[in-house]
Amino acid sequence: MRILITGSAGFVGSHLVERFLRDGHTVVGLDNYLSGQRRNTELFLAHPNFRFIEADVSRHLPYDGERLDWVLHFASPASPPHYQQYPIETLMVGAQGTQHALDLASQHGAGFLLASTSEVYGDPLVHPQPESYWGHVNPNGVRSCYDEAKRYAEAITMAYHRDRGVDTRIIRIFNTYGPRMRHDDGRVVTNFIHQALRGEALTIHGDGSQTRSFQFVDDLVEGIVRLMGVRYHEPVNLGNPDEYTIVQFAHLIRDLIDPSLDVTFEAAAQDDPKQRKPDIARARDLLGWTPRVSLIEGLSRTVEDFRADSKVPLLFSTTTSG
Amino acid sequence: MRILITGSAGFVGSHLVERFLRDGHTVVGLDNYLSGQRRNTELFLAHPNFRFIEADVSRHLPYDGERLDWVLHFASPASPPHYQQYPIETLMVGAQGTQHALDLASQHGAGFLLASTSEVYGDPLVHPQPESYWGHVNPNGVRSCYDEAKRYAEAITMAYHRDRGVDTRIIRIFNTYGPRMRHDDGRVVTNFIHQALRGEALTIHGDGSQTRSFQFVDDLVEGIVRLMGVRYHEPVNLGNPDEYTIVQFAHLIRDLIDPSLDVTFEAAAQDDPKQRKPDIARARDLLGWTPRVSLIEGLSRTVEDFRADSKVPLLFSTTTSG
Repeated sequence: MRILITGSAGFVGSHLVERFLRDGHTVVGLDNYLSGQRRNTELFLAHPNFRFIEADVSRHLPYDGERLDWVLHFASPASPPHYQQYPIETLMVGAQGTQHALDLASQHGAGFLLASTSEVYGDPLVHPQPESYWGHVNPNGVRSCYDEAKRYAEAITMAYHRDRGVDTRIIRIFNTYGPRMRHDDGRVVTNFIHQALRGEALTIHGDGSQTRSFQFVDDLVEGIVRLMGVRYHEPVNLGNPDEYTIVQFAHLIRDLIDPSLDVTFEAAAQDDPKQRKPDIARARDLLGWTPRVSLIEGLSRTVEDFRADSKVPLLFSTTTSG
Repeated sequence: MRILITGSAGFVGSHLVERFLRDGHTVVGLDNYLSGQRRNTELFLAHPNFRFIEADVSRHLPYDGERLDWVLHFASPASPPHYQQYPIETLMVGAQGTQHALDLASQHGAGFLLASTSEVYGDPLVHPQPESYWGHVNPNGVRSCYDEAKRYAEAITMAYHRDRGVDTRIIRIFNTYGPRMRHDDGRVVTNFIHQALRGEALTIHGDGSQTRSFQFVDDLVEGIVRLMGVRYHEPVNLGNPDEYTIVQFAHLIRDLIDPSLDVTFEAAAQDDPKQRKPDIARARDLLGWTPRVSLIEGLSRTVEDFRADSKVPLLFSTTTSG
């Protein structure tokens, strides 16, 4: 198959490129490097079945090659520090960006897959969240640039499906981690690994009893590949429902890197994201999918990747713990 | 002042044009006539302070005149039959259309006012709805093309305010009626008047005990004018909280037009909108605003307008009663 991936230089995008190339497909990557990283493109440039287009999909989607089988729309800032730094760009890639990708899929008779997010559930009043839950989102708060952009992206994806017959998929991605995450992602896993590799104490905001669930990126990619094989157009949650406390994350990461490091506690972050936990019954029933990679294995592989990356950037905020 | 109004040929837009011209301002109207009506432009073409641009604001906003003081973004299909007929256009005028209007306001250092809607509350779980309520909206149902477009429009309006300092206003308009409504609007007031003027029985879907609240368009316009005079950037509800049953509406309209007509009952419409009722404390406290026009006065003026309009179109659906 020939697959175009927007946001190919992002964390998840780069793992999709890797998987599809390994499976023998042809991949066209596209990114504008607003939050993607050039080294994630450089990884694949030598591969004969990979081609890259540097472009802002919110402005245009300049692909003029052979017929595409799939368009996967993964372009967007995705961590709170990034999208709050670029609110208008984040809104645009959800609206104009999604529409350009849908138009391209429509022109090619290709399938279209939207990377939506658990953020469409906002600050949920239902736990865990099934896909039928409509969410609880502030339409004009400081996080709305991301949450509402993704809700809009879902709405226009369904409109293209209903009105123009595009063969669409929508996934709602819950917290995901793994190699090639940006070190300044701002979320708890990257913050802890970054601190531990620098020999610093691991900083917990609040008392650390708050829980998080994270899926390893390989599990997410497997779910995406399976969903592409099924004609199902409603949203599908992809996430790991296993919950751990922040203290457990800190101890696991410290013990992997340097058991002598301290774990310290600071005041809770003001913008600390609320708890979300996926209901994955739909993905399990539809795709036979469940997360396979254990937390300790996933963390080991992520730490190894971060360690191998000698150029740990020095300047970023560690004030969010989400 | 010089005021540009998108959707100037729409129902509410045309009343804004009329009010601002009467108040001595210069008005630039803009419409693409997707749901607006040419006769609403023709009403003002002879006025020396009115100018009209026929354009689709989702594509571009070709204004090159003198400095604007305000940009008011009212362009959008607004009744369920219209926006469900044009889902992608409705999504685009909420995203690209709003952004083009915001960019124009930003370039001119003008104020910007967004016509949002009570539909951002969706199928509300809180009654009545204050502006602080986040709503209960299906992000990918058949109505999402309108609801999510307006939520996105609010989000990008706040992003331009926070990020680029645009002097923005957001109003959430609840059900409104009055002269110059489209006869095929599809809502209960227009359906009843249309049926009664044709000498037909007035058709109630369901048992008629469900309630609706409607504000007369002059009240809405007064609230808009007042809000433009106040530097307040959060959303403000504008609606009439007085509730009447559908049976009461039917009887009032029948008695105004022809008391001998029958009122008949049919099965409830499948897409019958849920009840919404505005909490107008914010508008009252901020603007000293409350609705002034009684239902009987407003209906009389609306019936008079519909009666004067000899060209009642024959072909439209009366299946929604919202």
